Amino acid sequence: MATAPTAANDQRYVYRFGGGVSDGGKGDRNLLGGKGANLAEMASIGLPVPPGFTISTDMCTRYYDEGGIFPDSLKAEVAQGLAHIEAVTGKKFGNANDPLLVSVRSGARASMPGMMDTVLNLGLNDLTVQGLAAVSGDQRFAWDSYRRFIQMYSDVVLELDHARFEEALEIAKEDRGYTLDTEMTAADWQALVAEYKALVEELWSKPFPQDVHDQLWGAIGAVFGSWQSERAKVYRRLNDIPASWGTAVNVQAMVFGNMGDTSATGVAFTRDPSTGANAYYGEFLINAQGEDVVAGIRTPQYLTKAAREAAGAKPLSMEEALPETYAELAKVFDLLERHYRDMQDIEFTVQQGKLWMLQTRSGKRTAKAALKIAVDMASEGLITKEEAILRVDPAALDQLLHPTLDPAAPRDVLTKGLPASPGAASGKVVFDADAAEKAAAAGESVILVRVETSPEDIHGMHAAKGILTARGGMTSHAAVVARGMGRPCVSGAGTLSIKASEGVMRVGQREVRAGEVITIDGTTGEVMVGEVPTIQPELAGDFGTLMVWADGVRRLKVRTNAETPLDCRTAREFGAEGIGLCRTEHMFFDAARITAVRQMILASDEAGRRAALDKLLPEQRADFAEIFRVMAGLPCTIRLLDPPLHEFLPHEESEFAEVAESSGVDIETLKRRAAELHEFNPMLGHRGCRLGVTFPEIYEMQARAIFEAAVSLDEAPVPEIMIPLVATARELELMKAVVDKAAEAVFAETGKRVDYLVGTMIELPRAALKAGEIAEVGEFFSFGTNDLTQTTLGVSRDDAGRFLTAYVEQGIYAKDPFVSLDVEGVGELVRIAAERGRAARDGLKLGICGEHGGDPASIAFCEVVGLDYVSASPYRVPIARLAAAQAALGKEG
Amino acid sequence: MATAPTAANDQRYVYRFGGGVSDGGKGDRNLLGGKGANLAEMASIGLPVPPGFTISTDMCTRYYDEGGIFPDSLKAEVAQGLAHIEAVTGKKFGNANDPLLVSVRSGARASMPGMMDTVLNLGLNDLTVQGLAAVSGDQRFAWDSYRRFIQMYSDVVLELDHARFEEALEIAKEDRGYTLDTEMTAADWQALVAEYKALVEELWSKPFPQDVHDQLWGAIGAVFGSWQSERAKVYRRLNDIPASWGTAVNVQAMVFGNMGDTSATGVAFTRDPSTGANAYYGEFLINAQGEDVVAGIRTPQYLTKAAREAAGAKPLSMEEALPETYAELAKVFDLLERHYRDMQDIEFTVQQGKLWMLQTRSGKRTAKAALKIAVDMASEGLITKEEAILRVDPAALDQLLHPTLDPAAPRDVLTKGLPASPGAASGKVVFDADAAEKAAAAGESVILVRVETSPEDIHGMHAAKGILTARGGMTSHAAVVARGMGRPCVSGAGTLSIKASEGVMRVGQREVRAGEVITIDGTTGEVMVGEVPTIQPELAGDFGTLMVWADGVRRLKVRTNAETPLDCRTAREFGAEGIGLCRTEHMFFDAARITAVRQMILASDEAGRRAALDKLLPEQRADFAEIFRVMAGLPCTIRLLDPPLHEFLPHEESEFAEVAESSGVDIETLKRRAAELHEFNPMLGHRGCRLGVTFPEIYEMQARAIFEAAVSLDEAPVPEIMIPLVATARELELMKAVVDKAAEAVFAETGKRVDYLVGTMIELPRAALKAGEIAEVGEFFSFGTNDLTQTTLGVSRDDAGRFLTAYVEQGIYAKDPFVSLDVEGVGELVRIAAERGRAARDGLKLGICGEHGGDPASIAFCEVVGLDYVSASPYRVPIARLAAAQAALGKEG
Repeated sequence: MATAPTAANDQRYVYRFGGGVSDGGKGDRNLLGGKGANLAEMASIGLPVPPGFTISTDMCTRYYDEGGIFPDSLKAEVAQGLAHIEAVTGKKFGNANDPLLVSVRSGARASMPGMMDTVLNLGLNDLTVQGLAAVSGDQRFAWDSYRRFIQMYSDVVLELDHARFEEALEIAKEDRGYTLDTEMTAADWQALVAEYKALVEELWSKPFPQDVHDQLWGAIGAVFGSWQSERAKVYRRLNDIPASWGTAVNVQAMVFGNMGDTSATGVAFTRDPSTGANAYYGEFLINAQGEDVVAGIRTPQYLTKAAREAAGAKPLSMEEALPETYAELAKVFDLLERHYRDMQDIEFTVQQGKLWMLQTRSGKRTAKAALKIAVDMASEGLITKEEAILRVDPAALDQLLHPTLDPAAPRDVLTKGLPASPGAASGKVVFDADAAEKAAAAGESVILVRVETSPEDIHGMHAAKGILTARGGMTSHAAVVARGMGRPCVSGAGTLSIKASEGVMRVGQREVRAGEVITIDGTTGEVMVGEVPTIQPELAGDFGTLMVWADGVRRLKVRTNAETPLDCRTAREFGAEGIGLCRTEHMFFDAARITAVRQMILASDEAGRRAALDKLLPEQRADFAEIFRVMAGLPCTIRLLDPPLHEFLPHEESEFAEVAESSGVDIETLKRRAAELHEFNPMLGHRGCRLGVTFPEIYEMQARAIFEAAVSLDEAPVPEIMIPLVATARELELMKAVVDKAAEAVFAETGKRVDYLVGTMIELPRAALKAGEIAEVGEFFSFGTNDLTQTTLGVSRDDAGRFLTAYVEQGIYAKDPFVSLDVEGVGELVRIAAERGRAARDGLKLGICGEHGGDPASIAFCEVVGLDYVSASPYRVPIARLAAAQAALGKEG
Repeated sequence: MATAPTAANDQRYVYRFGGGVSDGGKGDRNLLGGKGANLAEMASIGLPVPPGFTISTDMCTRYYDEGGIFPDSLKAEVAQGLAHIEAVTGKKFGNANDPLLVSVRSGARASMPGMMDTVLNLGLNDLTVQGLAAVSGDQRFAWDSYRRFIQMYSDVVLELDHARFEEALEIAKEDRGYTLDTEMTAADWQALVAEYKALVEELWSKPFPQDVHDQLWGAIGAVFGSWQSERAKVYRRLNDIPASWGTAVNVQAMVFGNMGDTSATGVAFTRDPSTGANAYYGEFLINAQGEDVVAGIRTPQYLTKAAREAAGAKPLSMEEALPETYAELAKVFDLLERHYRDMQDIEFTVQQGKLWMLQTRSGKRTAKAALKIAVDMASEGLITKEEAILRVDPAALDQLLHPTLDPAAPRDVLTKGLPASPGAASGKVVFDADAAEKAAAAGESVILVRVETSPEDIHGMHAAKGILTARGGMTSHAAVVARGMGRPCVSGAGTLSIKASEGVMRVGQREVRAGEVITIDGTTGEVMVGEVPTIQPELAGDFGTLMVWADGVRRLKVRTNAETPLDCRTAREFGAEGIGLCRTEHMFFDAARITAVRQMILASDEAGRRAALDKLLPEQRADFAEIFRVMAGLPCTIRLLDPPLHEFLPHEESEFAEVAESSGVDIETLKRRAAELHEFNPMLGHRGCRLGVTFPEIYEMQARAIFEAAVSLDEAPVPEIMIPLVATARELELMKAVVDKAAEAVFAETGKRVDYLVGTMIELPRAALKAGEIAEVGEFFSFGTNDLTQTTLGVSRDDAGRFLTAYVEQGIYAKDPFVSLDVEGVGELVRIAAERGRAARDGLKLGICGEHGGDPASIAFCEVVGLDYVSASPYRVPIARLAAAQAALGKEG
C-alpha cells in the first residue's frame, strides 16, 4: 500500500484510487468495503477507473463512538482526497467554470440493502450548473443533471418526501403536454430546478445547500447515518452481520454516459449467471445514466451480437454499435476474471468514447450456473478442483436434484404457502392417506392435501407425488417427513380452507374438488390449478464431475436415513455409503399391519402383546431382508421402536372394531386402554427405550426380525442396532442384553452368525454428559440432534412455529435450530459426548442422524468434532457429500 | 487388634471374640459386618458375650470370585475359631457327652432383610442330643432343641418347604389332643424328630446331616449364598447397597434362655424409641428362646416396674422378677449408651441366672424420638450439638410439622391411595374447586375430591383442608401443589370411582355423597369415612432447640416458594429468610380475575391484550403489596408468567360467554383462538420468556405491578425479578429491558426508587451451558431443577408414572429424579452453570427453587456446589434448615 497524505499523530481514514494511485486493493475489503477495495484494485492493475477516494469503515465506527461527529483530521484528509481527484481530472470542486462533480456511495464489507445507496452529480449548484453547461456545450444536459442531483439529494440525504418531487415532474410534463422525460428541454429542466428548490425550502425549512462542501459532508453523514437505519439493522440481524463492521464511503469523480451517442452505460457478467455458459452476458444503453436502465424508460440493448441474434432483437448490440469500446471492454472482462479467478459482475460507463470501470465484484449466480462455472473454471485451469468444490453452495444443489417446473409454461396460481420440501409435482387432489395409497396403487399421480399431517398419514405421503397442508411450518411433521422422502411439499398455505368431508378445498371464491389436478412447487411454495409441465434434473455432467472431486477430498462418510427399499435405492444412486437411521416405526403404519400394531399397544399384558408381535415378526423380517438386499453389505443402523405408542392408536369406531376382532378384547376395554395412553408431553413420555424397558418383548421381536433377515442373505449386512432415548448406561445394558439374547437364539436356530453392533442415539443432554459410562456398554453413538435440540433448548419442534419466527427476527437464534445445529449449545453437548465416549472406548463409531445431517453448516461442525459419518435423507445425500468435502477443506459452517 | 491364629502366607478371614479375646471392634463394620463388629466390641469392653468368631466379608467376595468354593486356609481358620469357643466354654463341638452348640448368623455392613437370618442349636445330632439331655438334665429341652434345629436348618439351609414341617408339628399336637407346644413332652418331641428326619430324606433325597462339621459348613455356605438371593438383590438395588460389600458370618456358642425359671430372653432399647423418653424400654420372657417372643405364643412381659404399672399389666416386670440380673442389665444399658453415644437396641439372654449379651446396635426410632434423644443427649453432654444436628433425619421432620391423626381414635377406612402430601385433615366432600372455595368462604372445612387436578383447581385446593384424587402419582399435579401448599393429599386412590355430576363417589358398594365428612391421612394414604380427631404438632421445645442449633451452623440460606400472604406467613413462622420463588401465574386463577386473564390470552392483537392487562394490573399490584408487607424487607424472587397460556383457557360454554361479554369478541372467534393454542408438548412450547418475547406487554404489566407495590411500602422489599425458561443471553437482555423500562417509568411517576435485581431461572440445559453469557446480563440465577430434570433426562413429570416405577425397580434411577436431584446428570449442569456464571459475574447470587430445594440429599449437593440459598415450600422450610446444617457439617446427600 502506498503512503498517502495524512495528518500527523492521527489514524488514517482516507484512501485514494485512480490516476495511477491506489492506496488500497482487493485485500482491504474489511477496511474499504467491497466497492472501495475493488475500485482500488482495478485502478492498481491499470484499468480506467474515475479517480476518487474511500473513507474507511473505521471512520464509521469512530463516528458512532463519538456521537455522530467527524474528527478534524478527517476534514483535512477529505480535502486531500478532493485535491487528488482535482489533480487527476483537472477540474475543481465548486469551480464555476469547470466544476468537478462527484458521486457518493456507501460500500460495506458485505453487500447490504437498506443502506443509503448513491448520490450522483454532487457539486452542482446555481453557479456550477452554468460551468457544466459551458464545458459540455449542452444546456439541457447540465440542467437535467442539476435537477437529478436535487431530487436524489433531497430523497436520500435530506430524507424529504420523494413523491412530491416526482409529482412536480409529472405536473411539469402534463402542463407542457409531454409524455416522456426526453421531451423536456433545457428551459423546462431549469424551470423544474426552481420548483425543486422551492419544494426543498418548503419541506426542509432551509434552502437547498449551495455550498458544495456542505453538500459533500451532508452526503458522507447520510451514508454513515444509514448504517444504523432500521432497515439496515433488520437486514444485519437476518444475515448475521455485526454492527461493528461499519460501512465505508466512496467519493468518486463523475463520468457521464449521457453525453451523446458515443456515450453509454451498462452492466455485465463475464459468464452467463443463469446457465453458467462461458459467454459475456449483459445489457447497455446509449446516451444514458445508470438510473435510466433501472427506470425502465428505454429497453436496454444486448451486449453481444450472438445474444441479440439469439433473442431476435433489432437494436444493435454494443459489439455492433461501439465495436472499439466493446473490444476494449472484452479485454477488461478477461483480465478481471483471470485476476479475480471468478465470474465478475461489472458496471461501466462510456463517456464520449472513453471506457470507465465503475464496479466489479464476484457475480451472484443460480445453482446451475455455480456448478457449471466451478467445473469449467477448474477444467480451464483457472482454479483448482478444491476451489471448485468450495465455490458451490451445497444447499443450492437441492434445486438441481428435484424436478422443476418448466419456467416457460403458464401458471394458474391458486395460492402460496411455505416452500417446505423442494421440487415440483402435479397430481389429482386427494384428502386422505388411504385414498392416496389406493389411487397410487391404481397408477394415478396424486397430491395429498391435509389440514396438517400426522404419523398415520405416512403411507399416504409416500404414495403421493407431493403434499400440501393448510397448517404447519417449515419444520412441521409434513415438512420434515416430505423432505425425508424427497417429496415436494408446500406447507402452511393459510388461505386454504379444506372441507375433506365435502371433498373440496377453497381459496376465497375458488374451489378445487377431489380428483381435480393441481401442481405444487415446493421450492417456491406456489400452488397451481392444473398440470404445469416439469423438467427432470440432470444428475450426470458437471454435477457428477463435482461429486467425484468432492468424494476425493472428504473424510466424513455419508449415510442416509431410509426405511423403504425405494428410498434405499434412491440414496445409493445419490452415493449413500450405508444407512444411518432406519426408523422401524415407519414400517408399522402400513395398512396391512397397523391392526396388529394396535392390538399390541392395547394389550393389557405381556401375553397379549406377544400374540400381536407374533403377527408382526414375519412382516418386519421381510422389511429388513429387502433393505439389506438393497444395501448389499453396507452398514445399516436400525433404530428400535421409538415413538410414543399412542401415535398408533385407532380413532375411528371401525378401527377399534378391527382391533377388537383381531385380539378378542371388547371395544370398551380397548377404548379405556387407549384413553389411558394419553400423554401431556408425549415427546418426553413413554417412548424410546422406555418402551423396551417396560415391554422388552417388543425389542426382542424387532431384534429377532433383524437377525433372521440378516442370516438369510448371502451378502451379510452389518446391522448396527440402535437403542433410542437412552439417558443412562443401565438402560442400554438392559436393552443390549435383550438384543444379544435374540441374536444368540437366532444364531443357534439357524447355525449361522453375522457380525453386529449395539449402540445408542445420543439425544438427551444426560446421555451426552454420561457418554463415558454409556460408551462402556454401547459400540457406537449416533447423535439424534432433533431430539437433542428439543431437550437442550426446551423447544418442541411441533410447537415452535408460534415463536420461532419472532426468535429469529429478534436475533435470539441466528437460524432455526432445527434446520442448522445450535453449535454453541447443542454443539457443546455433542462435543462433550464425543470426547467422553472416545475416552471410554477406543475407536467408538460416531455419527449424526436427524435433519442436521443434511445441513452444510452442521456438517462443517461434525467435521470439526471429528465424527465418522453424517446421515441425511436420500435427496440430501449429494448435499452432504459436497458439504463434507468443503468441511474437509476447512470451510466453516 | 490382637493377633490371632491364621495360616501363613494367606489372608486372614476369621476373627474371634469372647472369653477375653477380641480380634475386632466397632470400627470393623466393613470387615465384620454390623453384628460381628459389635459382638467383638462388647467383648472387648468386658461385657458377657458368648464366645464365637466372625468370618469376614472379604471371604464372601472371594467365595463368589472363585465360583462358590472355600479356600483350604479357611478350613484351618474355622477349626481354630471352633477351638477358641471350645476352650472358653469347655465343651467340644460334636462331643457326645457335653456337646458345644453354636448359632450361625449372617451380618452385613448394613442391616439387610432378604438374607439368611439365623440357625440355632447347630451341633445337635442323634448322639449329641443325648449328651445335651444328660448335661442339662432335661430330656424335653434337649429333644425340643433338636427338633427346632432340624426345622430351622431344613428351612434356611436346605431350603425345604417349611410348611411341611409346621404341618407335621400340628398333626403331632392334634393326634395327642394338644393345643400348645408347651404340652409336648420329651417323648413327643423325640417322635417328632424322627418324623422330621424322614421328611428331610423325602424332600432332600438325603438323610439329615449327622456330621456336625457338615452342618456348620452347610450353614456358612447358606449365609454366603443368601447374599445373591433374588430378595437380597432387590433390597440392595432399592437401597443402593453395592453387591461388592458382601456379608460376614457369625458363629457363636449357644446360650439358652429356656433352661428354667432363672433363664430368660429379651429385647430392649436404652430409651423409648417411640417418644424418645429417657427410660429403658423393652420386653422379655422367662424360660424361652428368642423365637418364642416372635411366635407370639406367650405375651412378653415388661422390662421395668414403671412400664408395667403404667400399662396396668399383671405379670411381673424383669425388674421385679429377676432383680439382680435386671440391675446388671441396667448397668450394661448405661455402659453401652455411653460407649456408643447413642440409644441402643439390645438382645440378651439369661441362662440360669447368668446374663449374656447377644447383640447391640443403634436403635431405630420415630422422628419424634430421634429429635428428643438428640436434643437430650446434647443437653446431657453425651454428644455435641453438631452431632445432635446430624442425628435427626430431616425428611422425618415432615411428620412432626403436620397435624396427625389421634392414634387412639377409631377409623372407618374407606380405601387407600398414595401418601402424596403429609398431614391429616377432615372435611365435607366437594367435587369441584369453585364449590370448595365457596364452602371455605362460608367457614366450612372441605376435602376437594377430583379424578385428577389441573392448574385451574388451584384456588379450590387452597381453599380445601385436603385433597383426594383417584388418579396420579406421588409427583402428579395434585401431589406437587398440595405439598407446596402444605395441604395433606392422598393421590391415586385407584379403587375410587368418582361421579362428580351425580355428586357421589364410590368404593365398591360404599357410597359417599357430596357434603358428607371424610378424613384423609396424607402420611399413610388412608381415606376414612367420618371425622377422625387430629393432634396438632408441637413446634417449640426440642424442635425449636434443634432449629436454633442448626441455624448456628448452616451456611446456605433458606427461602420459601410462596405466592399467597398465608403461605408467606407460614413460611416465616418456619424460619424462611425470603421468597425464592413466587409463581405469579398462580395468582391468575382466582375466580375474580380469570376472565380478564382469558380475555388477554384470546385477544388477537396487542391492543386487545393491553385492555385485559389493564384490568389485571391493580389486582397484581395488590397481591405483591400484601406479600411484600408480610416479607418485610426480605428478598423476594418473583417469576414472571411462565406456563403455557392454554392452561388458562375456558372450557365451559358459560366461561366462553363471560370472556365474550368482557372482551366484546364473539364466542366462535374465541373458540377458534382457543383451539389454535393447542400444543403437542406444552412443556416445550410457547411459555416462559417466549411469552414475554412475543407479548412483552404481559411482562411489562407484571413488572409495573411489582414496582408500584414496592414503592408504596415504607419497608421496601428487594424484588428479584426472575425471567423463566431462558436459553440465550439475548432473551434475558430483551426481557430485562422491558423490566428496566417499567421500573424507570414507575420511579419517574412516583418520585421514589427501590433497589431490585433482574435474573433468570436456569432450567434448560442450554442455559446451564451458556451460563457465562447469561450471567453477563442476569444478576442472579435460580436453578429450576424441576424443568431442568425434565429436559436433561427427557422425561415429562406428568407422564413419568408409566415407567418411573419400573425404572427405579430395575436400578436405572436410584430414586425418583423429581424427588431427589439426579446429581450425576442434572447435577453436572448445575455445577457447570454455577462455575461459568460466577466466572462471568463476581458474587452472582445462586439459588435453587423447585421441589429439590426441600430434599435433604439435593440440599447436600447445593452445599457442595456452593449455592447461596435453597428455596422450599413453607412446610419444608424446617427440613431445609436442618438439611442445610447437616450439609455444612459435611454430611453427604
